[in-house]
Amino acid sequence: MFSYRMPTEIFFGRDCLKTYGARLSGLGAHALVVTGRSSAKNGALSDVLSALAANGQEATVFDRVVPNPTVACVREGIALLRAAGADFIVAVGGGSPMDAAKAIALLSVEERADGEIFAGNYGVRALPMAHVPTTAGTGSEVTPYAILTNDEKETKTSISSPALFPKFAFLDGKYTFSLPRDITVNTALDAFSHAAESLLSRAGTPMSKMLAREALRILYPVLPRTGGTLSAEERDELLYASALAGMAIAQSGTTAVHGMGYCLTYFCGIDHGRANGLLFGETLRLCEEKGVAADVEEACGADAEEIRRLLDGLLGERENIPRESLLGFAERSVGNKNIVKSVYEPTKGEIERIFLRSFGRQTE
Amino acid sequence: MFSYRMPTEIFFGRDCLKTYGARLSGLGAHALVVTGRSSAKNGALSDVLSALAANGQEATVFDRVVPNPTVACVREGIALLRAAGADFIVAVGGGSPMDAAKAIALLSVEERADGEIFAGNYGVRALPMAHVPTTAGTGSEVTPYAILTNDEKETKTSISSPALFPKFAFLDGKYTFSLPRDITVNTALDAFSHAAESLLSRAGTPMSKMLAREALRILYPVLPRTGGTLSAEERDELLYASALAGMAIAQSGTTAVHGMGYCLTYFCGIDHGRANGLLFGETLRLCEEKGVAADVEEACGADAEEIRRLLDGLLGERENIPRESLLGFAERSVGNKNIVKSVYEPTKGEIERIFLRSFGRQTE
Repeated sequence: MFSYRMPTEIFFGRDCLKTYGARLSGLGAHALVVTGRSSAKNGALSDVLSALAANGQEATVFDRVVPNPTVACVREGIALLRAAGADFIVAVGGGSPMDAAKAIALLSVEERADGEIFAGNYGVRALPMAHVPTTAGTGSEVTPYAILTNDEKETKTSISSPALFPKFAFLDGKYTFSLPRDITVNTALDAFSHAAESLLSRAGTPMSKMLAREALRILYPVLPRTGGTLSAEERDELLYASALAGMAIAQSGTTAVHGMGYCLTYFCGIDHGRANGLLFGETLRLCEEKGVAADVEEACGADAEEIRRLLDGLLGERENIPRESLLGFAERSVGNKNIVKSVYEPTKGEIERIFLRSFGRQTE
Repeated sequence: MFSYRMPTEIFFGRDCLKTYGARLSGLGAHALVVTGRSSAKNGALSDVLSALAANGQEATVFDRVVPNPTVACVREGIALLRAAGADFIVAVGGGSPMDAAKAIALLSVEERADGEIFAGNYGVRALPMAHVPTTAGTGSEVTPYAILTNDEKETKTSISSPALFPKFAFLDGKYTFSLPRDITVNTALDAFSHAAESLLSRAGTPMSKMLAREALRILYPVLPRTGGTLSAEERDELLYASALAGMAIAQSGTTAVHGMGYCLTYFCGIDHGRANGLLFGETLRLCEEKGVAADVEEACGADAEEIRRLLDGLLGERENIPRESLLGFAERSVGNKNIVKSVYEPTKGEIERIFLRSFGRQTE
């Protein structure tokens, strides 16, 4: 028994905002455009503002989204939304603006005290949204999740609601052309991890498996080239694969790698995609030992050893994290809601081993 | 540039109506349950009525849908809907009840004179619907199409509207367990043709190709067994594959085989799925000659000759149709809106060849 739902309408290809921007006109009269500080550079913000203007829609830009957005950042967005009288949301940027936009869309309709934000059980209402990703990684444009920094629990935690699927996603690879190497690599590692973790999820379905396999089939051959110069076509492939991986985790959720990686981001400030990449190899080694790695290997057309070598090359020198910190992260990760969804759920000792070995520390 | 939309929420698996039937409660207060005369036999109708009753929803059954439904049948359904005061629709059955249900959902909201029904340009409103397929073939539960008999043009013609995607589809293979051999074979041929034609469509997208390949990967190995006794698992696979094929044509539409097949149904009363099967082999031969058959062969894991042999075995003896009739069907098919979407668009002479050879007639 499984269910499937992915109601977002996707427009994919060069200048899709020009071609299909009129579709935004059904969303409302006044857009809050949620973006980060650097999103103006790649042309996406101006394309969105042009499309809104052409439709006769008003726009207020909220460009103060910080990486790994906080509840305070979301509150600031909601205040601006209300002051401006905006009635729908356009997100422009990477995962952080998209996550913040979703939280604004939900929490502006359903009021919650800070302490209740991660308590779940959200209703099915949120302001309508369109998302314009400018990195090829998060897939947030096609998921019902918003991931926020959870200071109370000292981690990142996802909010989930059927209302968090955007109405529209506009995917144009040109917005990713000028991304620097580190963002290209890290976001590609995030997309890779989504697809592979989806295949390693207990909650996987025939639909999520199809989507994840297709994501890896397209993404894996491009992955080695993310450290160098990518063609326009390769950029498009990455963006498409990241959306497929997003559609996969929209069904299955993520698993152990994400569950452990949040610690590295919260406590060490390591970029989210890189955090996944750093932990992926040793997690895959465990999956291999437990006989559950074959789906990932087959979809990549590579064995686990080759996959680890590729990731190692992209990741370069690893962060120097004290042994005690790593053991602390392992301790915190036990019972994490993503980890328990893994097709093989690692024991505490195995989680310790993954953290230690991922940073070159001996396990004894 | 391509777009993707498939907003239907799917519940798949044994007793999914029992498990998820409460989801129907959001659709309205009073359901018109649209079905054929034989749908009571497989248990689907009683499961639907039980789910509606458990939700406290009223139900009026319209069980007079005829195969290849006509506009008159749709009008009859609309009259009953209005007399009963129904505000949503549940379709139970094969392609015909699902198509009729969609037309009722659309035309009860958007009034059209008979002569305007096939004129297109429908709005985006229709009554909300849930579909419960009881054959593994049409995929209508996940498409925005309703195909009706078009007496003015003496063919079957599709109506298309974004509003024709059902809100929910409940797919339970048990409703197909008791289907007789001919319906099992013919509906499987329909699903096969959807997936293969989608791969042969000019309007194909990366998403439709993924869905069509996956449909064929699952369906093709089961196809030889449709002529015999199928296990419950194989029935489930057929039903899932037919939905995947439906999702594929929801993006790409169908192509030459459907475009030609409608004549065989309208003038000779040949079952829709069988009509596609009868024309598929010779259409594939033409595609082979034109170098566009590889995607279909690869997805099936079989070459064109093997595919033709398999279809021939399932189809058995072919109908005896006069040469003049076949030439007339070819004449009518030229310029058909499905045929012109074929990745290789057959000429009039090639369409004649397909019709003639499909029924064992010499081409000279």
